[in-house]
Amino acid sequence: MADQYAQTGEDSKPTELPAIRWEEPPEGPVLVLLDQTRLPAEEVELVCTDASALVEAIRSLAVRGAPLLGIAGAYGVALAAARGFDVDEAAAVLAGARPTAVNLAVGVRRAEAAYRAELGKSGDQELAAGAALAAARRLHREDAAASAAMAERGLALLDELLPGGGHRILTHCNTGSLVSGGEGTAFAVALAAHRAGRLRRLWVDETRPLLQGARLTAYEAARSGMAYTLLTDNAAGSLFAAGEVDAVLIGADRIAADGSVANKVGSYPLAVLARYHHVPFIVVAPVTTVDPDTPDGASIEVEQRPGHEVTEIAAPQAPVAGAEAGGGILVAPLGTQAYNPAFDVTPPELVTAIVTEEGVVSPVTAEALAELCARSREVTIS
Amino acid sequence: MADQYAQTGEDSKPTELPAIRWEEPPEGPVLVLLDQTRLPAEEVELVCTDASALVEAIRSLAVRGAPLLGIAGAYGVALAAARGFDVDEAAAVLAGARPTAVNLAVGVRRAEAAYRAELGKSGDQELAAGAALAAARRLHREDAAASAAMAERGLALLDELLPGGGHRILTHCNTGSLVSGGEGTAFAVALAAHRAGRLRRLWVDETRPLLQGARLTAYEAARSGMAYTLLTDNAAGSLFAAGEVDAVLIGADRIAADGSVANKVGSYPLAVLARYHHVPFIVVAPVTTVDPDTPDGASIEVEQRPGHEVTEIAAPQAPVAGAEAGGGILVAPLGTQAYNPAFDVTPPELVTAIVTEEGVVSPVTAEALAELCARSREVTIS
Repeated sequence: MADQYAQTGEDSKPTELPAIRWEEPPEGPVLVLLDQTRLPAEEVELVCTDASALVEAIRSLAVRGAPLLGIAGAYGVALAAARGFDVDEAAAVLAGARPTAVNLAVGVRRAEAAYRAELGKSGDQELAAGAALAAARRLHREDAAASAAMAERGLALLDELLPGGGHRILTHCNTGSLVSGGEGTAFAVALAAHRAGRLRRLWVDETRPLLQGARLTAYEAARSGMAYTLLTDNAAGSLFAAGEVDAVLIGADRIAADGSVANKVGSYPLAVLARYHHVPFIVVAPVTTVDPDTPDGASIEVEQRPGHEVTEIAAPQAPVAGAEAGGGILVAPLGTQAYNPAFDVTPPELVTAIVTEEGVVSPVTAEALAELCARSREVTIS
Repeated sequence: MADQYAQTGEDSKPTELPAIRWEEPPEGPVLVLLDQTRLPAEEVELVCTDASALVEAIRSLAVRGAPLLGIAGAYGVALAAARGFDVDEAAAVLAGARPTAVNLAVGVRRAEAAYRAELGKSGDQELAAGAALAAARRLHREDAAASAAMAERGLALLDELLPGGGHRILTHCNTGSLVSGGEGTAFAVALAAHRAGRLRRLWVDETRPLLQGARLTAYEAARSGMAYTLLTDNAAGSLFAAGEVDAVLIGADRIAADGSVANKVGSYPLAVLARYHHVPFIVVAPVTTVDPDTPDGASIEVEQRPGHEVTEIAAPQAPVAGAEAGGGILVAPLGTQAYNPAFDVTPPELVTAIVTEEGVVSPVTAEALAELCARSREVTIS
């Protein structure tokens, strides 16, 4: 049973492999990634010695998750620089490895800019490579620090909303250290509650169609020794009805200026259930997730993903989100059309609070969010 | 052992194989079942020549669904009688093939009683076997007639609630001809709308964990030429938010005296979503589903099913609901504990209407349900 991980120290105890790490063996620097496509069946690391190996890892989803992709992109530029490859070329292929991942391109640009600036100043290739690596490490550290700040603020909010302690938290998709330079967003709050002895149970939605909850969040919960239980997404209703959920904690892909939250499909039904059952629905995300250029929920374009993710079921070891059909087990009649939105949009009136590293917004209003973003910019500039 | 032969001629075009049929080839009578464990990948029929083959088919879920199990049980007794086997012994093993399936035992008893009555009257074994078969056929016809009546009443209700026509209906689990002697319950209403040219789209929830929606409802929808689209259960929220659902139609496992509806897990979240979006939530079930001995929703004991249905994903060809773990692809860490209720309970205040073969109850109250049941008993007695 999952809970036994906490009690027993058997040889099945999960290890603590980080999602990403920079290493400098005598043969030269490498970027080591935990291959997420093989979780939870196997913990296998990929060692990248150049940008094209990293691009392949990004395309195959061995490394995934918005903040982590940014960090990976920055390290990828540093790797190219340290090993004397063409940095511009490496940056270009890395930034284009997953076109919709904004963070990836941002991370790449940040390391590339540091490299260029140092090269322009000193003309020293080695110093410039060091500057790129320093930029990547800084991004990594900042993300870890943001995770820690969100975890602290999130736990304080939970304790305030649920003074009894013994929180039973429902979460959706994967928001832990596999997608972050630190311990993640929503998952980091649950982990903080666990460490403080105030997590009674983490309810883990399996998160169809790609099963990130079953495959990755359950893995992270087991690795952390948390008391967790997996459920099909549609069983959450029974938990609410039985009074077994004290709070819902989710991450966010994008937050519109009015506070509408785009997140993994299945988040919105949880928000409606939470409202019906008077349970807090809490979104945990870094300030960078707030997009002032997207005025409201209706302005968020919902990406439709390939139908084969629904009509076929893929094994964890196989690529599960490739652009081409197939490889999985067909579970519906041939030719079945599927509706497969990647995420859904929860309106601000259903969100109890948005927890960021800079502060908590509750109630969620456009004014409060704008103020938070302005404050965050001041902090960054100063 | 049951013999098997593939009945399909062409590759992809759906055929019209009934879930169950009695045949009388020169070698003696047989009961022919569509093997539901192999759908939708293959349409294979099982030919049962004795009760033990039928028991095996019931245990392996080749034949399933409450009304259909009752019919199968009755035919099983008729088969034993027609082939000169010990009828008492056959009835006993059939009735115990799935202990929780009340309809199975009821169907078995009905055919056995007809057999006994004729044997007592005429002492003629052949006449008695004929009486058992007549009883099975009567049960089969009654169930088909109930389906037809529910379909007619359900469609009239839809047309009344949604005067524009062009209904976009969301359904959950499998409620068509695969579980019925006729065309089913909720699915039969959608089918009637389709035939009347008033079904714009059938939204089919995949229905985790056992995927009856993807495997069976999509198969029935394709076979009927309906415009249907498959979705993960958690994507229903996006459809409601986009105004793409005009009504929800589901079946029921049991209806308590107060109108609380126990049905496949995932029904209750749909009811909450439907209420939030002011969409009718309609339950379609025969009067026999109403259980006057269960006063309310809290009295319904929710069956917890094995965790491996959630932690593993089974291929359609494999047995998917066995009592023993395994055989599927592990999608969660080893040792993961799962919460896996078989069904959930929707309170009467969230149910717009209950459609039965005897009439429609709306609003759903204990008084209206009691009146319907009393009327139904009068009809049966008269």
